[in-house]
Amino acid sequence: MSANFYKRDDRDVKFVLKEHIKIHKLLEFPIFSDFQITDFDMALDEAQKIAFNVIAPTFQEADRNGCRFEDGRVYAPVSFKRCWKVFKDGGWFALSQNPDFNGQGLPLVVAEAATEFFMSANFSFACYSGMGAGIGGLIEAFGSQDQRRLFLEKLYSGDWGACMCLTEPDSGSDAHMVSTRAYPFDNYYKIRGSKIFITSGDHDLAENIIHLVLARIEGAPAGAKGVSLFAVPKIWVNDDGSLGDPNGVICAGIEHKMGLNGSATCVMNYGENRECLGRLVGEQGKGLAYMFQMVNVARLAVGLESVAFGANIYANVLEYAKNRIQGTLFGESSRDRVPIIQHPDVRRMLMNLKALTEGMRALVYKTYFWEDVSRWSPDASERAVASRRVELFTPIVKAYCSDRIFEMGREGIQIMGGYGYSREYPVEQYTRDCKILSIWDGTNYIQSIDLISRKIPAQKRLAFREWLSEIDEFINQDETSPETYDDLHLLKEAANLVNKMAQDLEKFVFSDDRTLACLLSTRFLDCCAELAISHLFLEQTRIAMEKIRSANSASPYQSFYQGKILTARYYIRNFLPNIFSRYRMFQLKDMSASQIPEACM
Amino acid sequence: MSANFYKRDDRDVKFVLKEHIKIHKLLEFPIFSDFQITDFDMALDEAQKIAFNVIAPTFQEADRNGCRFEDGRVYAPVSFKRCWKVFKDGGWFALSQNPDFNGQGLPLVVAEAATEFFMSANFSFACYSGMGAGIGGLIEAFGSQDQRRLFLEKLYSGDWGACMCLTEPDSGSDAHMVSTRAYPFDNYYKIRGSKIFITSGDHDLAENIIHLVLARIEGAPAGAKGVSLFAVPKIWVNDDGSLGDPNGVICAGIEHKMGLNGSATCVMNYGENRECLGRLVGEQGKGLAYMFQMVNVARLAVGLESVAFGANIYANVLEYAKNRIQGTLFGESSRDRVPIIQHPDVRRMLMNLKALTEGMRALVYKTYFWEDVSRWSPDASERAVASRRVELFTPIVKAYCSDRIFEMGREGIQIMGGYGYSREYPVEQYTRDCKILSIWDGTNYIQSIDLISRKIPAQKRLAFREWLSEIDEFINQDETSPETYDDLHLLKEAANLVNKMAQDLEKFVFSDDRTLACLLSTRFLDCCAELAISHLFLEQTRIAMEKIRSANSASPYQSFYQGKILTARYYIRNFLPNIFSRYRMFQLKDMSASQIPEACM
Repeated sequence: MSANFYKRDDRDVKFVLKEHIKIHKLLEFPIFSDFQITDFDMALDEAQKIAFNVIAPTFQEADRNGCRFEDGRVYAPVSFKRCWKVFKDGGWFALSQNPDFNGQGLPLVVAEAATEFFMSANFSFACYSGMGAGIGGLIEAFGSQDQRRLFLEKLYSGDWGACMCLTEPDSGSDAHMVSTRAYPFDNYYKIRGSKIFITSGDHDLAENIIHLVLARIEGAPAGAKGVSLFAVPKIWVNDDGSLGDPNGVICAGIEHKMGLNGSATCVMNYGENRECLGRLVGEQGKGLAYMFQMVNVARLAVGLESVAFGANIYANVLEYAKNRIQGTLFGESSRDRVPIIQHPDVRRMLMNLKALTEGMRALVYKTYFWEDVSRWSPDASERAVASRRVELFTPIVKAYCSDRIFEMGREGIQIMGGYGYSREYPVEQYTRDCKILSIWDGTNYIQSIDLISRKIPAQKRLAFREWLSEIDEFINQDETSPETYDDLHLLKEAANLVNKMAQDLEKFVFSDDRTLACLLSTRFLDCCAELAISHLFLEQTRIAMEKIRSANSASPYQSFYQGKILTARYYIRNFLPNIFSRYRMFQLKDMSASQIPEACM
Repeated sequence: MSANFYKRDDRDVKFVLKEHIKIHKLLEFPIFSDFQITDFDMALDEAQKIAFNVIAPTFQEADRNGCRFEDGRVYAPVSFKRCWKVFKDGGWFALSQNPDFNGQGLPLVVAEAATEFFMSANFSFACYSGMGAGIGGLIEAFGSQDQRRLFLEKLYSGDWGACMCLTEPDSGSDAHMVSTRAYPFDNYYKIRGSKIFITSGDHDLAENIIHLVLARIEGAPAGAKGVSLFAVPKIWVNDDGSLGDPNGVICAGIEHKMGLNGSATCVMNYGENRECLGRLVGEQGKGLAYMFQMVNVARLAVGLESVAFGANIYANVLEYAKNRIQGTLFGESSRDRVPIIQHPDVRRMLMNLKALTEGMRALVYKTYFWEDVSRWSPDASERAVASRRVELFTPIVKAYCSDRIFEMGREGIQIMGGYGYSREYPVEQYTRDCKILSIWDGTNYIQSIDLISRKIPAQKRLAFREWLSEIDEFINQDETSPETYDDLHLLKEAANLVNKMAQDLEKFVFSDDRTLACLLSTRFLDCCAELAISHLFLEQTRIAMEKIRSANSASPYQSFYQGKILTARYYIRNFLPNIFSRYRMFQLKDMSASQIPEACM
């Protein structure tokens, strides 16, 4: 029997969904009219059980044994077979997808909350199980009716797996440099080329795998406009939906990585020794634009993945800190030794983990909620506001959360001391597994450039101004409350600085100072995230205070609300002030990193 | 042929030694009168060659194959046998130790500079090779004449290995809780008990291993005063120096860790199935005090280890960034793609690596230099000042450097993108290997408590005041230079804040606010480190400016000095300002982490 490190709970998830962002509002949208709030609860509760009982036991096995590459085939960790079957039986592959094609039709924010549990249990399994919905979503949005018919049900049911094939050796961040070729052939295209770093590019969990491949049709223009998207099955899918011969889709090897060993990261060759056919998805030359719709979803998912890691790191470390007896309290060396949770610095580190997990969750879930609103609200202006907010927050979610989670792994290891460094405990593995998040789906620098050069300047900073107005309004509403007076004051000061920096950066971006803007962009992005999270935490504080006031003091949730208020305060007083140093650095306008000649480095 | 990732150079090492801290001053001390500066150069150059040619090729082999535990014996990575032989042949095991016993008698700072190269090449080998000198040093300082005769030459020559045996399952940070027992037996003691996390506790590189074991003599008082130190050989050493029978020293297993897989971390049992004898070293009840002399040396070594990791991470990543072509410059998308070193954020991250490596090196080497002065200066008052400074800086060196190096690993991975996450490249391994540094030899929290409760308050803050006066004097000397005016101003502002915080913390430490002090201590320690490094960088700037003014402009070192000035400026404008946020947090006196009830966490 394998160790089970799934120790997290769901209390904050339900608080955020039901009390903070209030998902019952979604039930008012026609598309969700058949649901009741209890349906969401049931889905979440069942997901927790599967996460704990089915997925979590694979955590160490998948890391230790990893994937196997043999004779051109990839074998996923053995323990994943059962997970895949449970997912198929329960319909867990496509929670927010279209019910017409086997999807569950849940709101995105609820689907992703359930997915958070799965990711906490073992993210490397989620790297396989999550692909079908994403790839299917693209085919649903841009493919032909025939393609929907051929692929969607199979993808959403988990009969088939999928992968997104973008990166090439010379085309990483430069997605538009794709060199894979496509040659027209009857109604199809022959595909030739190589891709690298393809997550779930091959495995033995499903009978077929649909590769969505970016390639350049013979004669297409150079650059982004020449890139098209193709659905390339591992085993050919005939026009009547039956399976044909193996297609020329060959895995040439898998990467050996720092972590995520259970997830197959493949080098893929298309059309090398055997003909490889694909179907064009959507219009020629629009492949990158289509793909970026999925990339944007993946960027939000990086935030969710970070939250999922954080929740379980915190839970494991908290348990350890409560049980490990070591040291007397400072200044009380003649008294008994104490559980290390009583040492102030251990508590500080635990609070870093708790505050970041909950703060990032508020940010990520709120953004998913806006995505639901932007898709499904009957009110067009509400849809527009929500859509702008998602656009603005996507790079913030992706970069801030993925940078923090690696630091959280470090903090978790540190709290556990030598045991944290040991592979007996899960935290070192979480730390190794999560490092990829700051790199894939656009490096965090690319996110920060997206933020300062596109998302903020768009429509004369409309989305940014809407956001700051919302914060301002919130502050004015609440300024009289003595419990939060100081923290609101900090929030206001921080908002002013973020606004100032944004305006300056916009000037820099569109002038000769653009190098300076690029030197400051990642730090500015972190300021935006800390402001956003502090605001959300103060919203939560207001709710928690109200609940404490109105509830029976014997309510089992009193301690949750009390903890929430102190956690929010901790974040605002220990993270938000980072803005002041960064503002100081901002004012220094230091260019030494760009001035130093390469020969001097 | 294994990949060789030893890509660092020694230019900054020699700059710090010869131009900045000016080691030729050490030649004036009688003990070093037989040396010339060229001897030091020769030792360093030879060490570089061995690091590159002999140790570096073991880097991946040792990680991948790790140590083997079989039938109660530990086998080090096979590739380490040759390294050990080369070390023996060249006398590299005891560079700063007493020449009367096979040591090389070099100044500590020179010996450690050579060791930096070895550690860069493969730290897990250095975990074995460095033990003999440390353990021998303790025996030399506190053991009897007979013990020196029996052990030192064998330890300093590398005929025998050694290990320090402190930690027990219930006694990690609580070193005084040792439960291992010692029973008088003729002139010896029978030892019984278990130790865990014993680095180099067993291996097959040397014919014998001397364990220095902390144990409690039957009837000894509880607590620190009951702990004594014993020399316990793996194979008994007769009084005439000949080897006897195997002693009851048994390895019960090795840890599986996040990194440092080539270093054996052992569970050791003493006297379990076979009698285990040891000799008492020094006086009864002084074991912990003796051991802490070695622990202090080890704490400085943690700083050196961090520098060693940093130097080679930087060198590898720099090479990659110069060669990897990806992306166009921001705002110039129609132009050619560029090596990623030209992207501002990549440069920022490279400068983080360069500035931290050089800044930490300055701090570490300066502290080693003071240690040499405190040991060997003929001037008693100079010795006293130097000794106080070493005391003050030891926790700062240990904690600041070991926290930074893990962040630097992260930064290195980030610069290399997906390739940084791959095990083909060395940075992910450096990152895994270095994580232990913030934990062993006293966690970084313990360092910060040592700083605020002992090192700073000692003798009415004498050492601290001497240090700040030195900074003050430096600022006043240089205030007229226009090139450094702004940075000196920042330094002054930072010094004032550090002084203020130190005074407040001292009040908190010795009052009911001591929990607040403990919540702030690690952040305060980082402030001290950033102040110290900024000061040292400005000293280096002054030297570099002078060299540029006086040198022939065709001198090959012009670019080094120019780089140094910009690197110093980068650190001061991008790290030192962190003090301002931390000061703000300091002023907030946030106690939420200690106020939150355990039930609310």
